[in-house]
Amino acid sequence: MTITITAFERSPDGGKGLARDTRVRWVLEEAGLPYNVRPVSFTAMKEPAHLAIHPFGQIPTYEEGDLVLFESGAIIFHVASRHAGLLPDDADARARAIMWMFAGLNTVEPPILELVTVKFTEGDKPWAKDRLPLVRDRIRHRLGQLSARLGDATWLDGAFSAGDLVMVSVLLRTRPSGILDEFPSLAAYVARGEARPAYQRAFAAQLAFNTGAPANG
Amino acid sequence: MTITITAFERSPDGGKGLARDTRVRWVLEEAGLPYNVRPVSFTAMKEPAHLAIHPFGQIPTYEEGDLVLFESGAIIFHVASRHAGLLPDDADARARAIMWMFAGLNTVEPPILELVTVKFTEGDKPWAKDRLPLVRDRIRHRLGQLSARLGDATWLDGAFSAGDLVMVSVLLRTRPSGILDEFPSLAAYVARGEARPAYQRAFAAQLAFNTGAPANG
Repeated sequence: MTITITAFERSPDGGKGLARDTRVRWVLEEAGLPYNVRPVSFTAMKEPAHLAIHPFGQIPTYEEGDLVLFESGAIIFHVASRHAGLLPDDADARARAIMWMFAGLNTVEPPILELVTVKFTEGDKPWAKDRLPLVRDRIRHRLGQLSARLGDATWLDGAFSAGDLVMVSVLLRTRPSGILDEFPSLAAYVARGEARPAYQRAFAAQLAFNTGAPANG
Repeated sequence: MTITITAFERSPDGGKGLARDTRVRWVLEEAGLPYNVRPVSFTAMKEPAHLAIHPFGQIPTYEEGDLVLFESGAIIFHVASRHAGLLPDDADARARAIMWMFAGLNTVEPPILELVTVKFTEGDKPWAKDRLPLVRDRIRHRLGQLSARLGDATWLDGAFSAGDLVMVSVLLRTRPSGILDEFPSLAAYVARGEARPAYQRAFAAQLAFNTGAPANG
C-alpha cells in the first residue's frame, strides 16, 4: 500500500532537517518503506482540505490506504510497531522504548519549542531579549538531566530504538542555538543517530526536497 | 504483581486532580487494577533515589515487578495496551487512538503548560502581565482547532479510548483559567470524561491523598 506523507512546501529551516517530516522520513527509511511526499504551503495548511487530515494545521501527516494519521510521534510509533528493529521484542524493554518516545515529545521537546516562541512569535516584544536566557536555562536543565541518565551509554536503553529516533530528532533542534554542544555526551549521542544510514537518506531526501526543483517527493 | 505509582506528597493544586498522577490513577481504575501510591516530597524528587526512577525528577512513576516507567503518557499506554476497553482492536482505529494520546501530550498540552511558566516561574518578571494574554490566546487557538475536530461527537474517534483519557486530562488543566468554559463542546467533552466511574474513583483517591491524614496511598 502506498504511503504518502506531507511536508512543508519549503521548510522554514531551509533544509536543516529540523522540520518534523524528517523524523517520519527517518523511521520510514529505518523500516525500509518507500513513501511519497506531498508538499503543503503555509496557506494550504490552514485550509479545510488539510485541516480534514490534520486538525491542528501542521505537518507531517501519514496516509496509507484508509489510514490517516497526524502527529509525528504517532506516525513513528505506527511504523515502529509493525517493523522489526525499532522496538524491542521483550515486553518490558518495549515499554521503556515507548517511554522514551513520550519523554522526548512531552518532557524534552516543550522547553525547546519555547525557543521559537521567544525568538520568533514574540521576537518583537520588549521582553524577548531578557526572556531568552531563561528559556535557554530551562532547556539546559532538561538536557543536563538527560545527559546524566544517558551516562556513557550508546543509546538510551540497550539497542537503538524508536525512543532514540525521537530523542535524537528532538535534540537536533537545540544545535543551532549552541546548547547541544554544551553537553558533549548528548552531542555525541545525536551524532550517532545522524550517522545511521537511514538518517542520512532521510536527511538527504528532505534537503533535496527543500532546495531542489519544484518539490514533488 | 503489585503496582506502585508515585505522587506529590502534597499536590500544588491541593487536590484539584490536575497533577499527572490523576491520569495514571484513572487508567488504572479503568483497567480495574489495584495500586499503591508512594508519596514523594519536593525535596526527595530531586534526590538520587528518585532520579534513578525518574531522570527528570517528576511524578508519576510506575513500578510493577522489574518494570519501572516514568512519563504519564507511557504509563497510560502500557496499561491501555494490556487491558480491554482502552484501545480499539481494529488496527487503524487503534493507531488513531494512540495518535490522540500523542496529540494531547505533544500538541495540546505544551501551550497549556506555558500558563504555569507565565504565572509562576516568571510570575515576578516585569513582562508577566503583558505576556499572559498571548499565552492564553495560544491555548484558545489550539482548543478552537480541537473543538472544530470534535464537532458534536461524544469522543474523539468512536468509543472512549486512552486517547480521550489523555485529552480530557490535559484539557482539565485549562478549567481554572476559565478558558475551557469558553469552548462549550470541549467543556461538555471533559464533563463526560469526569462522569466516568473510573475517573470519579481516581479523583476521590487523589483528593483523599492530598487532603487526608499522613499520605500513604
